[in-house]
Amino acid sequence: MQETEYIRDGNAIYEKSFAIIRAEADLARFSMEEADVAIRMIHACGLVEAAQHFVFSEGFVAAGRAALKEGAPILCDAEMVARGVTRTRLPAGNDVICTLRDARTPELAQKLGNTRSAAALELWREHMEGAVVAIGNAPTALFYLLDMLRAGAPKPAAIIGMPVGFVGAMESKEALAESGLGIPFAIVRGRMGGSAMTAAAINALARAGL
Amino acid sequence: MQETEYIRDGNAIYEKSFAIIRAEADLARFSMEEADVAIRMIHACGLVEAAQHFVFSEGFVAAGRAALKEGAPILCDAEMVARGVTRTRLPAGNDVICTLRDARTPELAQKLGNTRSAAALELWREHMEGAVVAIGNAPTALFYLLDMLRAGAPKPAAIIGMPVGFVGAMESKEALAESGLGIPFAIVRGRMGGSAMTAAAINALARAGL
Repeated sequence: MQETEYIRDGNAIYEKSFAIIRAEADLARFSMEEADVAIRMIHACGLVEAAQHFVFSEGFVAAGRAALKEGAPILCDAEMVARGVTRTRLPAGNDVICTLRDARTPELAQKLGNTRSAAALELWREHMEGAVVAIGNAPTALFYLLDMLRAGAPKPAAIIGMPVGFVGAMESKEALAESGLGIPFAIVRGRMGGSAMTAAAINALARAGL
Repeated sequence: MQETEYIRDGNAIYEKSFAIIRAEADLARFSMEEADVAIRMIHACGLVEAAQHFVFSEGFVAAGRAALKEGAPILCDAEMVARGVTRTRLPAGNDVICTLRDARTPELAQKLGNTRSAAALELWREHMEGAVVAIGNAPTALFYLLDMLRAGAPKPAAIIGMPVGFVGAMESKEALAESGLGIPFAIVRGRMGGSAMTAAAINALARAGL
């Protein structure tokens, strides 16, 4: 069949994409390791300007990397986040857990008077100690997580808090940044975020480079 | 446990989100039905300014809606797109198909000298006639689709072409818009796009309103 001209090699596409992002994005305020994460997040949304909204707390990349190397599970609020995690990059065959569709979740949501996304976190408790949390969809899940932690739930090693949207997204991310819980975190300030950026952050933590 | 104040009702969150988007986004150039799709796409990316890049070809919403009602399968280039489709909204229990992880795909990719995302489309052929195509990740998949169609592959009812990124994304979407194939389409011009916006477009076609 007649073929259009375009780059067909996956690694070449990644390399060229990352080079364009490095050339165009303002990454000056990030450490080298934070920049690696930021580049993958920009790649996921197609917008170099998004970088101005990224916040990495002191020690976030180191804590996330160490936890994954030690086999920490990745706790995701949405199936899209879980699907976006590249399993072959994970350093220790880490479990990728999403409890949103667990059979118990709808009843929990009703009992708690909250969304299913938030209620699903009740089923995280046994996995939370030292885990890497990846919230990329629901502000209610991030709000609920913070309430759980303040009430004494086991502490994860790092929290990626990147819900997207117009109601509660900004507020839930600011609440994480100001929580004083002492857990390293990454957020995207404001309305942007989402499952692709969240999964990209995990994929960057899982392995440096391409 | 001590609880933070936030909206906990999923439908109320949607309603308020959509009201904010209607108030802030410039939707004047869209028909009422296109605006419904645009609003869900904006909701998925958190950026009202994204609307300026949306292009719906004449008849796209009607063609997509009709196809889904008739039971058309949804052909997705990425698992994240497939996961983002809300099954309970689908009007006819439509199949959601992603062949990226089919056991035959890696070998096909090698044979074709292309990405797995592109090669996976060879396994779409038997489903393509009248289908709704949802490409939200890989420019190579969209380029490959256009070559397949020009070479006589069965015609889908509508094409959502929204790959995201820095290499080929813009070009592949322009190629769809200028293809002259006569298949209704929706694109996001430029670098933006992605699995969430693509799935949002499908979810909007699947059912009007909340």
